[in-house]
Amino acid sequence: MGGMEVHLAVAKTNKYATSESGDSVEVVERPNGGISVVMADGQSSGKGAKQVSSLVVRKVISLLSEGVRDGASARAASDYLFTERKGKVSATLNIVSIDLQTATMVITRNNPLPVLIASVDEICAFDDESIPIGLYRDTRPLISEVPLEPGLMVVFFTDGLVHAGSRTGETLDIKTFLQSLIDDDVDEEETSPQEIADSLLAHAVQLDQGRPVDDITVVAISVTSRVSDSVRRLSVHLPL
Amino acid sequence: MGGMEVHLAVAKTNKYATSESGDSVEVVERPNGGISVVMADGQSSGKGAKQVSSLVVRKVISLLSEGVRDGASARAASDYLFTERKGKVSATLNIVSIDLQTATMVITRNNPLPVLIASVDEICAFDDESIPIGLYRDTRPLISEVPLEPGLMVVFFTDGLVHAGSRTGETLDIKTFLQSLIDDDVDEEETSPQEIADSLLAHAVQLDQGRPVDDITVVAISVTSRVSDSVRRLSVHLPL
Repeated sequence: MGGMEVHLAVAKTNKYATSESGDSVEVVERPNGGISVVMADGQSSGKGAKQVSSLVVRKVISLLSEGVRDGASARAASDYLFTERKGKVSATLNIVSIDLQTATMVITRNNPLPVLIASVDEICAFDDESIPIGLYRDTRPLISEVPLEPGLMVVFFTDGLVHAGSRTGETLDIKTFLQSLIDDDVDEEETSPQEIADSLLAHAVQLDQGRPVDDITVVAISVTSRVSDSVRRLSVHLPL
Repeated sequence: MGGMEVHLAVAKTNKYATSESGDSVEVVERPNGGISVVMADGQSSGKGAKQVSSLVVRKVISLLSEGVRDGASARAASDYLFTERKGKVSATLNIVSIDLQTATMVITRNNPLPVLIASVDEICAFDDESIPIGLYRDTRPLISEVPLEPGLMVVFFTDGLVHAGSRTGETLDIKTFLQSLIDDDVDEEETSPQEIADSLLAHAVQLDQGRPVDDITVVAISVTSRVSDSVRRLSVHLPL
Protein backbone atom coordinates (compact mmCIF):
# COMPACT_ATOMS: atom_id res chain seq x y z
CA MET A 1 0.00 0.00 0.00
CA GLY A 2 2.94 2.35 -0.48
CA GLY A 3 2.38 5.79 -1.88
CA MET A 4 -1.13 6.45 -0.61
CA GLU A 5 -2.40 8.87 1.95
CA VAL A 6 -5.79 9.07 3.64
CA HIS A 7 -7.13 12.49 4.52
CA LEU A 8 -10.20 12.73 6.73
CA ALA A 9 -12.02 15.95 7.58
CA VAL A 10 -15.00 16.74 9.80
CA ALA A 11 -16.96 20.01 9.96
CA LYS A 12 -19.68 20.32 12.57
CA THR A 13 -21.99 23.00 13.87
CA ASN A 14 -24.85 23.20 16.34
CA LYS A 15 -28.49 24.00 15.78
CA TYR A 16 -28.99 27.76 16.18
CA ALA A 17 -29.08 28.92 19.81
CA THR A 18 -28.31 25.51 21.30
CA SER A 19 -25.05 24.84 23.09
CA GLU A 20 -25.18 21.05 22.76
CA SER A 21 -25.19 19.22 19.46
CA GLY A 22 -27.27 16.05 19.08
CA ASP A 23 -24.56 14.84 16.71
CA SER A 24 -21.46 13.08 18.00
CA VAL A 25 -18.41 12.17 15.96
CA GLU A 26 -15.11 10.62 17.05
CA VAL A 27 -12.07 9.22 15.26
CA VAL A 28 -10.11 6.32 16.75
CA GLU A 29 -7.10 4.28 15.80
CA ARG A 30 -7.85 0.65 14.91
CA PRO A 31 -5.84 -1.89 16.92
CA ASN A 32 -4.64 -3.66 13.77
CA GLY A 33 -3.84 -0.52 11.81
CA GLY A 34 -5.87 2.24 10.25
CA ILE A 35 -8.53 4.50 11.67
CA SER A 36 -12.30 4.57 12.09
CA VAL A 37 -14.65 7.51 12.17
CA VAL A 38 -17.92 7.02 14.04
CA MET A 39 -20.84 9.44 13.65
CA ALA A 40 -24.22 9.29 15.41
CA ASP A 41 -27.23 11.57 15.46
CA GLY A 42 -29.59 11.15 18.42
CA GLN A 43 -33.34 11.53 17.99
CA SER A 44 -34.60 15.10 18.67
CA SER A 45 -32.11 17.78 19.66
CA GLY A 46 -30.41 19.29 22.70
CA LYS A 47 -29.22 17.55 25.84
CA GLY A 48 -31.22 14.33 25.43
CA ALA A 49 -30.09 13.80 21.85
CA LYS A 50 -26.48 14.49 22.81
CA GLN A 51 -26.63 11.87 25.55
CA VAL A 52 -27.96 9.29 23.11
CA SER A 53 -25.48 10.02 20.33
CA SER A 54 -22.49 10.08 22.65
CA LEU A 55 -23.61 6.85 24.34
CA VAL A 56 -23.77 5.21 20.90
CA VAL A 57 -20.42 6.58 19.70
CA ARG A 58 -18.69 5.69 22.98
CA LYS A 59 -19.96 2.12 22.80
CA VAL A 60 -18.83 1.73 19.20
CA ILE A 61 -15.33 3.21 19.64
CA SER A 62 -14.81 1.13 22.75
CA LEU A 63 -15.65 -2.06 20.83
CA LEU A 64 -13.63 -1.07 17.74
CA SER A 65 -10.58 -0.33 19.87
CA GLU A 66 -10.82 -3.85 21.29
CA GLY A 67 -10.70 -5.28 17.77
CA VAL A 68 -14.43 -5.99 17.34
CA ARG A 69 -15.46 -5.79 13.69
CA ASP A 70 -17.44 -2.79 12.47
CA GLY A 71 -20.68 -4.64 11.75
CA ALA A 72 -20.66 -6.42 15.12
CA SER A 73 -19.93 -3.10 16.86
CA ALA A 74 -22.93 -1.46 15.18
CA ARG A 75 -25.20 -4.34 16.17
CA ALA A 76 -23.91 -4.24 19.73
CA ALA A 77 -24.57 -0.48 19.89
CA SER A 78 -28.10 -1.05 18.63
CA ASP A 79 -28.85 -3.74 21.22
CA TYR A 80 -27.30 -1.54 23.89
CA LEU A 81 -29.41 1.50 22.99
CA PHE A 82 -32.53 -0.66 22.65
CA THR A 83 -31.94 -2.09 26.12
CA GLU A 84 -30.96 1.22 27.78
CA ARG A 85 -33.89 3.20 26.35
CA LYS A 86 -36.42 0.35 26.03
CA GLY A 87 -36.78 0.76 22.25
CA LYS A 88 -38.12 4.29 22.60
CA VAL A 89 -35.16 6.28 21.29
CA SER A 90 -33.41 5.97 17.96
CA ALA A 91 -30.09 7.18 16.62
CA THR A 92 -28.50 7.06 13.21
CA LEU A 93 -25.03 5.51 13.11
CA ASN A 94 -22.30 5.61 10.47
CA ILE A 95 -18.92 3.95 10.78
CA VAL A 96 -16.30 4.39 8.09
CA SER A 97 -13.01 2.58 8.57
CA ILE A 98 -9.69 2.60 6.82
CA ASP A 99 -8.85 -1.05 7.39
CA LEU A 100 -5.19 -1.75 6.69
CA GLN A 101 -5.61 -5.50 7.15
CA THR A 102 -7.97 -5.79 4.18
CA ALA A 103 -6.74 -2.62 2.35
CA THR A 104 -10.34 -1.48 2.08
CA MET A 105 -12.60 1.27 3.23
CA VAL A 106 -15.42 -0.34 5.21
CA ILE A 107 -18.66 1.67 5.19
CA THR A 108 -21.24 0.71 7.81
CA ARG A 109 -24.66 2.40 7.80
CA ASN A 110 -27.63 2.47 10.13
CA ASN A 111 -28.96 5.61 8.55
CA PRO A 112 -31.62 6.31 5.92
CA LEU A 113 -29.30 8.96 4.46
CA PRO A 114 -26.90 7.89 1.72
CA VAL A 115 -23.13 7.72 1.85
CA LEU A 116 -21.74 9.34 -1.31
CA ILE A 117 -18.77 7.78 -3.10
CA ALA A 118 -17.09 10.04 -5.63
CA SER A 119 -14.64 8.99 -8.29
CA VAL A 120 -13.20 11.07 -11.11
CA ASP A 121 -16.22 10.65 -13.39
CA GLU A 122 -19.24 10.27 -11.19
CA ILE A 123 -20.77 10.28 -7.75
CA CYS A 124 -22.50 7.15 -6.64
CA ALA A 125 -24.85 6.97 -3.64
CA PHE A 126 -24.93 4.05 -1.25
CA ASP A 127 -28.60 4.48 -0.47
CA ASP A 128 -30.11 1.05 0.00
CA GLU A 129 -32.76 1.16 2.70
CA SER A 130 -31.21 1.29 6.15
CA ILE A 131 -32.86 2.07 9.48
CA PRO A 132 -31.53 3.80 12.60
CA ILE A 133 -30.56 1.76 15.64
CA GLY A 134 -32.35 1.55 18.99
CA LEU A 135 -35.98 0.93 17.97
CA TYR A 136 -35.93 -2.81 17.31
CA ARG A 137 -34.07 -5.80 18.59
CA ASP A 138 -31.50 -7.20 16.16
CA THR A 139 -31.19 -4.20 13.84
CA ARG A 140 -28.49 -4.91 11.27
CA PRO A 141 -26.35 -2.37 9.47
CA LEU A 142 -25.63 -2.28 5.75
CA ILE A 143 -21.96 -2.76 5.02
CA SER A 144 -20.04 -1.89 1.84
CA GLU A 145 -16.35 -2.45 1.25
CA VAL A 146 -14.41 -0.41 -1.29
CA PRO A 147 -10.75 -1.02 -2.17
CA LEU A 148 -8.39 1.71 -0.97
CA GLU A 149 -7.10 3.38 -4.09
CA PRO A 150 -6.11 6.89 -5.12
CA GLY A 151 -9.05 9.00 -6.26
CA LEU A 152 -11.55 7.49 -3.82
CA MET A 153 -13.60 10.12 -2.00
CA VAL A 154 -16.40 9.40 0.47
CA VAL A 155 -18.80 11.96 1.94
CA PHE A 156 -21.48 11.44 4.59
CA PHE A 157 -23.48 13.67 6.91
CA THR A 158 -26.29 13.99 9.40
CA ASP A 159 -29.80 15.11 8.43
CA GLY A 160 -29.17 18.74 9.34
CA LEU A 161 -27.43 19.00 5.98
CA VAL A 162 -30.38 17.49 4.15
CA HIS A 163 -32.95 19.70 5.88
CA ALA A 164 -31.02 22.93 5.42
CA GLY A 165 -33.20 25.57 3.83
CA SER A 166 -36.46 24.02 5.03
CA ARG A 167 -37.42 27.25 6.81
CA THR A 168 -37.69 28.99 3.44
CA GLY A 169 -38.59 26.00 1.30
CA GLU A 170 -35.15 25.73 -0.27
CA THR A 171 -33.14 22.54 -0.46
CA LEU A 172 -29.50 21.69 -0.89
CA ASP A 173 -28.88 19.27 -3.75
CA ILE A 174 -25.91 17.66 -2.05
CA LYS A 175 -24.84 15.44 -4.93
CA THR A 176 -24.85 18.26 -7.47
CA PHE A 177 -23.10 20.61 -5.06
CA LEU A 178 -20.45 17.97 -4.32
CA GLN A 179 -19.94 17.40 -8.04
CA SER A 180 -19.39 21.12 -8.58
CA LEU A 181 -16.83 21.18 -5.74
CA ILE A 182 -14.94 18.28 -7.27
CA ASP A 183 -15.08 19.85 -10.75
CA ASP A 184 -13.64 23.03 -9.25
CA ASP A 185 -10.20 21.42 -8.93
CA VAL A 186 -7.78 24.27 -9.35
CA ASP A 187 -4.57 23.59 -11.28
CA GLU A 188 -4.88 19.81 -11.12
CA GLU A 189 -4.97 20.14 -7.34
CA GLU A 190 -7.70 17.86 -5.99
CA THR A 191 -10.31 19.52 -3.80
CA SER A 192 -9.37 18.57 -0.23
CA PRO A 193 -11.77 16.81 2.13
CA GLN A 194 -11.60 19.83 4.45
CA GLU A 195 -12.69 22.14 1.63
CA ILE A 196 -15.53 19.77 0.76
CA ALA A 197 -16.77 19.39 4.34
CA ASP A 198 -16.44 23.14 4.98
CA SER A 199 -18.16 24.14 1.74
CA LEU A 200 -21.12 21.77 2.19
CA LEU A 201 -21.58 22.97 5.78
CA ALA A 202 -21.22 26.65 4.86
CA HIS A 203 -23.73 26.32 2.04
CA ALA A 204 -26.21 24.62 4.36
CA VAL A 205 -25.82 27.32 7.01
CA GLN A 206 -26.37 29.93 4.31
CA LEU A 207 -29.62 28.19 3.22
CA ASP A 208 -30.62 28.29 6.90
CA GLN A 209 -29.92 32.04 6.85
CA GLY A 210 -27.05 31.69 9.33
CA ARG A 211 -29.30 30.01 11.92
CA PRO A 212 -29.07 26.23 11.39
CA VAL A 213 -32.45 24.51 11.96
CA ASP A 214 -30.66 21.39 13.16
CA ASP A 215 -27.19 20.19 14.17
CA ILE A 216 -25.10 19.55 11.06
CA THR A 217 -22.08 17.25 10.72
CA VAL A 218 -20.24 16.57 7.46
CA VAL A 219 -17.43 14.04 7.07
CA ALA A 220 -15.26 13.73 3.95
CA ILE A 221 -12.49 11.18 3.39
CA SER A 222 -10.16 10.95 0.42
CA VAL A 223 -7.42 8.59 -0.66
CA THR A 224 -4.65 10.20 -2.68
CA SER A 225 -1.41 8.98 -4.17
CA ARG A 226 0.55 11.98 -2.98
CA VAL A 227 2.65 11.26 0.07
CA SER A 228 4.68 14.13 1.41
CA ASP A 229 6.26 12.25 4.32
CA SER A 230 5.48 9.40 6.72
CA VAL A 231 4.10 11.69 9.42
CA ARG A 232 0.61 11.21 10.81
CA ARG A 233 -1.15 14.44 11.55
CA LEU A 234 -4.27 15.30 13.48
CA SER A 235 -5.71 18.75 13.91
CA VAL A 236 -8.74 20.02 15.85
CA HIS A 237 -10.28 23.49 15.82
CA LEU A 238 -12.70 24.09 18.65
CA PRO A 239 -14.48 27.44 18.94
CA LEU A 240 -15.38 28.13 22.58
CA MET B 1 -15.81 32.33 26.99
CA GLY B 2 -16.87 34.05 23.78
CA GLY B 3 -14.29 34.92 21.19
CA MET B 4 -11.75 32.18 21.85
CA GLU B 5 -10.72 29.23 19.77
CA VAL B 6 -8.67 26.18 20.71
CA HIS B 7 -6.45 24.67 18.07
CA LEU B 8 -4.86 21.30 18.75
CA ALA B 9 -2.32 19.60 16.49
CA VAL B 10 -0.53 16.25 16.64
CA ALA B 11 2.42 15.09 14.53
CA LYS B 12 3.60 11.52 14.93
CA THR B 13 6.09 9.22 13.29
CA ASN B 14 7.40 5.70 13.87
CA LYS B 15 10.87 4.52 14.79
CA TYR B 16 12.78 3.81 11.59
CA ALA B 17 11.86 0.51 9.94
CA THR B 18 9.07 -0.35 12.38
CA SER B 19 5.45 -0.45 11.30
CA GLU B 20 3.99 -0.08 14.78
CA SER B 21 4.55 2.91 16.99
CA GLY B 22 4.91 2.42 20.75
CA ASP B 23 3.22 5.81 21.11
CA SER B 24 -0.56 6.14 21.16
CA VAL B 25 -2.51 9.35 21.06
CA GLU B 26 -6.26 9.95 20.86
CA VAL B 27 -8.53 12.96 21.14
CA VAL B 28 -12.02 12.65 22.64
CA GLU B 29 -14.90 14.94 23.35
CA ARG B 30 -15.61 15.52 27.05
CA PRO B 31 -19.17 14.73 28.11
CA ASN B 32 -19.60 18.13 29.75
CA GLY B 33 -17.99 20.13 26.97
CA GLY B 34 -14.48 20.52 25.62
CA ILE B 35 -11.96 17.95 24.49
CA SER B 36 -9.15 15.86 25.95
CA VAL B 37 -6.00 14.61 24.29
CA VAL B 38 -4.43 11.49 25.78
CA MET B 39 -0.87 10.42 24.92
CA ALA B 40 0.97 7.32 26.15
CA ASP B 41 4.36 5.82 25.38
CA GLY B 42 4.78 2.14 26.21
CA GLN B 43 8.08 0.81 27.54
CA SER B 44 10.43 -0.50 24.78
CA SER B 45 9.24 -0.34 21.16
CA GLY B 46 7.33 -2.34 18.56
CA LYS B 47 4.29 -4.53 19.05
CA GLY B 48 4.56 -4.96 22.83
CA ALA B 49 4.94 -1.25 23.46
CA LYS B 50 2.00 -0.48 21.16
CA GLN B 51 -0.21 -2.88 23.08
CA VAL B 52 0.69 -1.22 26.36
CA SER B 53 0.24 2.35 25.16
CA SER B 54 -3.07 1.64 23.44
CA LEU B 55 -4.33 -0.25 26.49
CA VAL B 56 -3.54 2.80 28.62
CA VAL B 57 -5.04 5.34 26.21
CA ARG B 58 -8.18 3.24 25.71
CA LYS B 59 -8.72 2.95 29.45
CA VAL B 60 -8.29 6.68 29.94
CA ILE B 61 -10.56 7.82 27.08
CA SER B 62 -13.20 5.36 28.16
CA LEU B 63 -13.18 6.81 31.69
CA LEU B 64 -13.03 10.44 30.52
CA SER B 65 -15.98 9.89 28.20
CA GLU B 66 -17.98 8.64 31.19
CA GLY B 67 -17.26 11.90 33.02
CA VAL B 68 -14.47 10.61 35.30
CA ARG B 69 -12.04 13.38 36.21
CA ASP B 70 -8.61 13.44 34.57
CA GLY B 71 -6.59 12.70 37.72
CA ALA B 72 -8.83 9.79 38.69
CA SER B 73 -8.63 8.43 35.13
CA ALA B 74 -4.82 8.51 35.22
CA ARG B 75 -4.76 6.72 38.58
CA ALA B 76 -7.21 4.12 37.31
CA ALA B 77 -5.06 3.55 34.21
CA SER B 78 -2.02 3.08 36.43
CA ASP B 79 -3.74 0.54 38.67
CA TYR B 80 -5.08 -1.22 35.59
CA LEU B 81 -1.66 -1.48 33.92
CA PHE B 82 -0.04 -2.52 37.23
CA THR B 83 -2.61 -5.30 37.62
CA GLU B 84 -2.57 -6.45 33.98
CA ARG B 85 1.21 -6.57 33.71
CA LYS B 86 2.05 -7.33 37.36
CA GLY B 87 4.11 -4.14 37.80
CA LYS B 88 6.63 -5.20 35.16
CA VAL B 89 5.75 -2.76 32.38
CA SER B 90 5.62 1.01 32.52
CA ALA B 91 4.12 3.66 30.29
CA THR B 92 4.25 7.42 30.33
CA LEU B 93 0.88 9.15 30.27
CA ASN B 94 -0.13 12.73 29.50
CA ILE B 95 -3.68 14.05 29.50
CA VAL B 96 -4.41 17.62 28.49
CA SER B 97 -8.01 18.75 28.63
CA ILE B 98 -9.87 21.82 27.54
CA ASP B 99 -12.43 21.82 30.33
CA LEU B 100 -15.35 24.12 29.55
CA GLN B 101 -16.90 23.65 32.98
CA THR B 102 -13.94 25.24 34.75
CA ALA B 103 -12.71 27.31 31.76
CA THR B 104 -9.24 25.89 32.29
CA MET B 105 -6.70 23.73 30.58
CA VAL B 106 -6.03 20.75 32.84
CA ILE B 107 -2.57 19.22 32.43
CA THR B 108 -2.08 15.75 33.90
CA ARG B 109 1.39 14.15 33.82
CA ASN B 110 2.78 10.73 34.60
CA ASN B 111 5.90 11.41 32.63
CA PRO B 112 9.43 12.53 33.59
CA LEU B 113 9.41 14.78 30.51
CA PRO B 114 8.18 18.34 30.95
CA VAL B 115 5.09 19.95 29.50
CA LEU B 116 6.06 23.33 28.04
CA ILE B 117 3.78 26.32 28.49
CA ALA B 118 4.52 29.26 26.23
CA SER B 119 3.24 32.78 26.64
CA VAL B 120 4.22 35.88 24.69
CA ASP B 121 7.35 36.55 26.72
CA GLU B 122 8.65 33.24 27.94
CA ILE B 123 8.42 29.47 27.93
CA CYS B 124 7.90 27.81 31.26
CA ALA B 125 8.41 24.09 31.86
CA PHE B 126 6.13 22.02 34.07
CA ASP B 127 8.89 19.64 35.09
CA ASP B 128 8.32 18.67 38.70
CA GLU B 129 9.33 15.07 39.23
CA SER B 130 6.72 12.70 37.85
CA ILE B 131 6.98 8.95 37.26
CA PRO B 132 5.41 6.71 34.61
CA ILE B 133 2.45 4.52 35.47
CA GLY B 134 2.36 0.74 35.84
CA LEU B 135 5.35 0.01 38.08
CA TYR B 136 3.90 0.77 41.50
CA ARG B 137 0.55 0.58 43.17
CA ASP B 138 -1.10 3.97 43.75
CA THR B 139 1.00 6.06 41.36
CA ARG B 140 -0.37 9.58 41.33
CA PRO B 141 -0.15 12.07 38.48
CA LEU B 142 0.88 15.70 38.76
CA ILE B 143 -1.91 18.05 37.78
CA SER B 144 -1.70 21.70 36.76
CA GLU B 145 -4.60 23.93 35.83
CA VAL B 146 -4.14 26.99 33.65
CA PRO B 147 -6.92 29.47 32.81
CA LEU B 148 -8.03 29.36 29.18
CA GLU B 149 -7.00 32.67 27.70
CA PRO B 150 -5.76 33.91 24.35
CA GLY B 151 -1.99 33.51 23.91
CA LEU B 152 -1.74 30.27 25.86
CA MET B 153 0.30 27.61 24.06
CA VAL B 154 1.14 24.16 25.43
CA VAL B 155 3.57 21.67 23.89
CA PHE B 156 4.34 18.13 25.01
CA PHE B 157 5.94 15.07 23.45
CA THR B 158 7.26 11.56 23.90
CA ASP B 159 10.93 10.79 24.56
CA GLY B 160 11.70 10.14 20.89
CA LEU B 161 11.86 13.92 20.54
CA VAL B 162 14.27 14.25 23.44
CA HIS B 163 16.56 11.47 22.24
CA ALA B 164 16.68 12.65 18.63
CA GLY B 165 20.28 12.97 17.48
CA SER B 166 21.62 10.49 20.04
CA ARG B 167 23.10 8.36 17.24
CA THR B 168 25.52 11.16 16.40
CA GLY B 169 25.76 12.77 19.81
CA GLU B 170 23.61 15.75 18.88
CA THR B 171 20.66 16.94 20.92
CA LEU B 172 17.58 18.99 20.22
CA ASP B 173 17.20 21.92 22.61
CA ILE B 174 13.42 21.80 22.51
CA LYS B 175 12.78 24.93 24.55
CA THR B 176 15.12 27.09 22.48
CA PHE B 177 13.80 25.66 19.23
CA LEU B 178 10.20 26.30 20.34
CA GLN B 179 11.10 29.86 21.30
CA SER B 180 12.58 30.46 17.84
CA LEU B 181 9.42 29.08 16.22
CA ILE B 182 7.25 31.40 18.29
CA ASP B 183 9.52 34.38 17.56
CA ASP B 184 9.19 33.59 13.85
CA ASP B 185 5.62 34.92 13.79
CA VAL B 186 5.19 36.29 10.29
CA ASP B 187 3.15 39.48 9.87
CA GLU B 188 1.61 39.33 13.34
CA GLU B 189 0.26 35.90 12.44
CA GLU B 190 0.81 33.56 15.38
CA THR B 191 2.72 30.36 14.61
CA SER B 192 0.07 27.66 14.44
CA PRO B 193 0.17 24.52 16.61
CA GLN B 194 0.43 22.43 13.44
CA GLU B 195 3.52 24.36 12.33
CA ILE B 196 5.04 23.94 15.79
CA ALA B 197 4.35 20.20 16.01
CA ASP B 198 5.51 19.63 12.41
CA SER B 199 8.69 21.71 12.82
CA LEU B 200 9.74 20.06 16.08
CA LEU B 201 9.15 16.62 14.58
CA ALA B 202 10.92 17.46 11.31
CA HIS B 203 13.92 18.84 13.17
CA ALA B 204 14.13 15.71 15.30
CA VAL B 205 13.93 13.43 12.27
CA GLN B 206 16.68 15.50 10.66
CA LEU B 207 18.91 15.05 13.75
CA ASP B 208 18.20 11.32 13.43
CA GLN B 209 19.37 11.55 9.80
CA GLY B 210 15.92 10.63 8.46
CA ARG B 211 15.83 7.38 10.45
CA PRO B 212 14.16 8.09 13.82
CA VAL B 213 15.80 6.12 16.65
CA ASP B 214 12.47 5.97 18.48
CA ASP B 215 8.78 6.69 17.92
CA ILE B 216 8.14 10.43 18.15
CA THR B 217 4.87 12.18 19.00
CA VAL B 218 4.48 15.95 19.41
CA VAL B 219 1.28 17.66 20.56
CA ALA B 220 0.74 21.44 20.48
CA ILE B 221 -2.36 23.28 21.69
CA SER B 222 -3.05 26.99 21.43
CA VAL B 223 -5.82 29.29 22.59
CA THR B 224 -6.41 32.28 20.35
CA SER B 225 -8.89 35.14 20.35
CA ARG B 226 -9.59 34.86 16.65
CA VAL B 227 -12.85 33.12 15.88
CA SER B 228 -13.68 32.75 12.23
CA ASP B 229 -16.99 30.94 12.70
CA SER B 230 -18.68 28.56 15.13
CA VAL B 231 -17.70 25.44 13.18
CA ARG B 232 -15.73 22.64 14.85
CA ARG B 233 -13.20 21.07 12.57
CA LEU B 234 -11.18 17.90 12.78
CA SER B 235 -8.66 16.73 10.23
CA VAL B 236 -6.51 13.60 10.01
CA HIS B 237 -3.69 12.80 7.58
CA LEU B 238 -2.71 9.16 7.56
CA PRO B 239 0.09 7.96 5.25
CA LEU B 240 -0.42 4.29 4.37
